[in-house]
Amino acid sequence: MKILIVGASGTLGQAVAAELGQRHEIIRAGRHGGDVRVDVRDAASVEAMYASVGELDAVVCAAGKVPFAPLAELTEAKYLEGLNDKLLGQVRLVQAGMNHLRDRGSFTLITGILTEQPILAGACASMANGAVEAYVRAAAIELPRGLRINVVSPNVLTEAMDAYGPFFRGFEPVSAARAALAFSRSVEGLQTGQVYKVW
Amino acid sequence: MKILIVGASGTLGQAVAAELGQRHEIIRAGRHGGDVRVDVRDAASVEAMYASVGELDAVVCAAGKVPFAPLAELTEAKYLEGLNDKLLGQVRLVQAGMNHLRDRGSFTLITGILTEQPILAGACASMANGAVEAYVRAAAIELPRGLRINVVSPNVLTEAMDAYGPFFRGFEPVSAARAALAFSRSVEGLQTGQVYKVW
Ligand SMILES: NC(=O)c1ccc[n+]([C@@H]2O[C@H](COP(=O)([O-])OP(=O)(O)OC[C@H]3O[C@@H](n4cnc5c(N)ncnc54)[C@H](OP(=O)(O)O)[C@@H]3O)[C@@H](O)[C@H]2O)c1
Ligand SMILES: NC(=O)c1ccc[n+]([C@@H]2O[C@H](COP(=O)([O-])OP(=O)(O)OC[C@H]3O[C@@H](n4cnc5c(N)ncnc54)[C@H](OP(=O)(O)O)[C@@H]3O)[C@@H](O)[C@H]2O)c1
Repeated sequence: MKILIVGASGTLGQAVAAELGQRHEIIRAGRHGGDVRVDVRDAASVEAMYASVGELDAVVCAAGKVPFAPLAELTEAKYLEGLNDKLLGQVRLVQAGMNHLRDRGSFTLITGILTEQPILAGACASMANGAVEAYVRAAAIELPRGLRINVVSPNVLTEAMDAYGPFFRGFEPVSAARAALAFSRSVEGLQTGQVYKVW
Repeated sequence: MKILIVGASGTLGQAVAAELGQRHEIIRAGRHGGDVRVDVRDAASVEAMYASVGELDAVVCAAGKVPFAPLAELTEAKYLEGLNDKLLGQVRLVQAGMNHLRDRGSFTLITGILTEQPILAGACASMANGAVEAYVRAAAIELPRGLRINVVSPNVLTEAMDAYGPFFRGFEPVSAARAALAFSRSVEGLQTGQVYKVW
């Protein structure tokens, strides 16, 4: 398969590229490095990426950023920033990517445990994740040509505990390699509309 | 209790006002009629509403609109329109309302069955609903002064089947009066962070 990984240089993206790269051709995308540049916050940039890489069998997203702040400090601008990146960034990959995937190709998006298990300062993250998961269930029943869509929801990653540890006390970290297995299950399996929880 | 109902003139809002009005003082809000005017798509309008009504014991939302269109026709503008109304409209009620609720007051928001059970043309609705439900779970753990927040997720309403029937074949409609009970449970109970499913 020819698989595009958006966010391939990140903590999670590297592990996904390592897992899928054992068996498939990987195209790495991100703002700064890799095989093709893209900023998912910009619809034109997403279109240009797809135009440049040609037909694909799978699109995987391991990007998506949201602001973390206590509830009372989450301004409208912050909510919009998070929605534009983690939610609409992924939606753009799907809406534009529909026409660039081969029959029975797949999208695999990324959320995280915060959809269901909230933490301090995480309301925007939870919101964006909840939106992505419901969107995936809805898009799954409408995608044409046997296209599939799933989402991987990992716990906090072991590799990220230095940075995020204080927010995730008591959560059981999972390795990026373990989370990457769920991407493989989505891309190389046949299900659609699934939230693969890695926790 | 002194309870503000946003969208009190609607199909659902009328039933909620009838249920809660038996035991409480109701302030009706909406764009066109009622006791106070508000457009939830406008943060300044939400602030002005709160300033004019004084302290409250509960805020209930029975407003929120999203565009329905087949997946391939859901443009970025349409997604943003739905998010600005059904998601951010409700978030504005909470973020601004925090300072206007008495201790142990409550917010009760509205989603619907599409969060979990998608239909044709409903991807934006599902997305907005999923975001609201995850936001409610997250806000619940951070709200100060014993403030609570829940969300009611009804099936399609019996009263709306003339309009929405073709999209909801096989779904079991629930009466607006039955959905209104869940609002009472949220406002007059003590739970927080709950999604009350009426289906
Ligand atoms: N880390 C965790 O514990 C954890 C747990 C659960 C879920 N997640 C989710 O997993 C995803 C990846 O997390 P991570 O920790 O691996 O992040 P990361 O290490 O910061 O990597 C992010 C990757 O995305 C790319 N990227 C960032 N902004 C982009 C944009 N606007 N357009 C295109 N590419 C962009 C980055 O490359 P460039 O900078 O070159 O663009 C990088 O490759 C996020 O959605 C995160 O919420 C993470
Ligand atoms: N109907 C169903 O079958 C069903 C099922 C599940 C969930 N829901 C949800 O329940 C909620 C209410 O549905 P409904 O069928 O009762 O709708 P509705 O009959 O159209 O009533 C909507 C109410 O909200 C007010 N409103 C609309 N836009 C507003 C805005 N921007 N700012 C403030 N108020 C606004 C309207 O009054 P003005 O026009 O005067 O502003 C009206 O009072 C929606 O979120 C809907 O998605 C409905």
